[in-house]
Amino acid sequence: MRNVRFLILVLSLVVCASVAVAQKGSFGELKQLQSPQDPAIGFIIQGGTLAGAKGSLTPEKEKEYRAKLQEVVLAGYKALKDGKSSIDAVELAIRMMEDSPLFDPGSKNERDASVMDGKTLNAGAVASVHRVKNPITLARRVMEKSDNGMLTGDGAAKFAREQKIDVIDEAAKDEKGNDEKAKGEKGKLIIETAVSSTSVRKGGVGAVALDRNGNIAAGSSSGGVTNGKPGRVGEAAIIGAGTFANNNTCGVSGTGSGEFFIRLGIARDISALMEYQAQPIQAAADRVIKQKLQKLGGNGGIIAIDKFGNMAISFNTAGMFRAYINADGKPVVEIY
Amino acid sequence: MRNVRFLILVLSLVVCASVAVAQKGSFGELKQLQSPQDPAIGFIIQGGTLAGAKGSLTPEKEKEYRAKLQEVVLAGYKALKDGKSSIDAVELAIRMMEDSPLFDPGSKNERDASVMDGKTLNAGAVASVHRVKNPITLARRVMEKSDNGMLTGDGAAKFAREQKIDVIDEAAKDEKGNDEKAKGEKGKLIIETAVSSTSVRKGGVGAVALDRNGNIAAGSSSGGVTNGKPGRVGEAAIIGAGTFANNNTCGVSGTGSGEFFIRLGIARDISALMEYQAQPIQAAADRVIKQKLQKLGGNGGIIAIDKFGNMAISFNTAGMFRAYINADGKPVVEIY
Repeated sequence: MRNVRFLILVLSLVVCASVAVAQKGSFGELKQLQSPQDPAIGFIIQGGTLAGAKGSLTPEKEKEYRAKLQEVVLAGYKALKDGKSSIDAVELAIRMMEDSPLFDPGSKNERDASVMDGKTLNAGAVASVHRVKNPITLARRVMEKSDNGMLTGDGAAKFAREQKIDVIDEAAKDEKGNDEKAKGEKGKLIIETAVSSTSVRKGGVGAVALDRNGNIAAGSSSGGVTNGKPGRVGEAAIIGAGTFANNNTCGVSGTGSGEFFIRLGIARDISALMEYQAQPIQAAADRVIKQKLQKLGGNGGIIAIDKFGNMAISFNTAGMFRAYINADGKPVVEIY
Repeated sequence: MRNVRFLILVLSLVVCASVAVAQKGSFGELKQLQSPQDPAIGFIIQGGTLAGAKGSLTPEKEKEYRAKLQEVVLAGYKALKDGKSSIDAVELAIRMMEDSPLFDPGSKNERDASVMDGKTLNAGAVASVHRVKNPITLARRVMEKSDNGMLTGDGAAKFAREQKIDVIDEAAKDEKGNDEKAKGEKGKLIIETAVSSTSVRKGGVGAVALDRNGNIAAGSSSGGVTNGKPGRVGEAAIIGAGTFANNNTCGVSGTGSGEFFIRLGIARDISALMEYQAQPIQAAADRVIKQKLQKLGGNGGIIAIDKFGNMAISFNTAGMFRAYINADGKPVVEIY
């Protein structure tokens, strides 16, 4: 009788332990990237995926990308160290990438962007907007200055004019003697300088930040698919697909095959695995990108930060342009 | 020693049992609506929320709504019994509601719609489309006939023309002697007959179906907010917000304050609670609508079906227009 009881006890404990392990996910040892601590300040950016194999990026081009990624990640980190909010740092970094010919496929495309505040769960998004220089800023205005969560097309452009957001003037570009329009003052027309980027890079750009108040923010922006169907909306415009932030779980920015990101709700799903199964951030990210997205036939990658400053990077492509600030406060730039 | 071991055994079992209960969710007894079985075929529709209090709907208007909801739910159920797919039944029912002046706020508004196939996780969505008579059909074409998951505005309208989808001709309506245009043949212009619905009803329409092959589909459609900001996108256009379907969890269609549905990813979150915490469908729906949405200050409701034909209805408004087929194969129409 004593032996039977003891056996039942042992079996009960084994079952309990198994349940606990299953809940945590059986992913073995995972490298855990950590942000600077005391206070925890985290900053990570992505600049799209590598479309081809490793050799498709020339050494010169790779150097340019690495330099720009480092410049951007340092600027965002400086903003956070100076006491700026996670939303401010995310907007700043994404604007820098939107302004860079390296990451912007040019004005002919329709642009998508979204931003989310993990403290309030407020969010703003714009889809299929033309002629707006910095869609991420417009998305932030939608979040903060309108009753709406998402605006598209002409409606978004109208709101941009109301908000005196910089627009790109295609007409001015073609006319002679119109240089006065090119000054780029707030609300004035400016001439676009972006040129088409190399086809080696694919997808949008994004940033995720954790500020010293423990607030997480995430944002994404995309110049669209070159020669894409008019009105096509990608993951960068969809809260839950390309962008998500919740102080209780994580902030995520992703880029890749937009349709798959939307169907799977990639960014939201990573947060759900942390919320409902207490999965660590890297395990949650890998499960969604390397299992679910992979299985469905999609490709892409994500960057993420949780409330402790733990970071995750996961992609199923040959590479993803990215940079983050490590635990020593130093920038780390990676592509492959 | 025996007593100590026995005590540990009892405590272990209590802990295990508590974990199990916590995973299922501590919601007490919940009424579980069930669909007809052998084979399980489920069909449920929603026609928006009740904006005012119970008395705001006149008896005459209530009768009209109830009659239409019954007609629609029976038509969808008949399609499923006849062996049609869940996608077919969802499209059919939503078209009937889009065509009804009771549910359609009229052509002046921009329309949103989305549909998702729980077997393949394929999805299609359109946002801010003008002049398309049946946005749900356009969303289905986006899913089945395009490489894209979501189209907006003029791009969506262009795709509608390519697909020879019925459009509403505002100009024809104003011209005399243009009756030939009003025949509504495929690809021809037709004259819109919808008139503005009473303001007592609010939000979009939607349907969720489980067919005899065990496939779940969900769809939502909205005529937009009357006098809403141009380009504003609501939950009906967003996969994961107003629409979601996964054969392994459930299908969901929701309607309400679109911004909150998008931020919370309402439909996707209900599925996540079932996927990651094995919550029953009604408990998952109530947690998202009556706790999360309520707490954030949003309002609205959802309908859902799981793979067993269990149905969930949850809303935090005075009412939600809805109908379903009960376990006896009979239609049940409810508003409050």
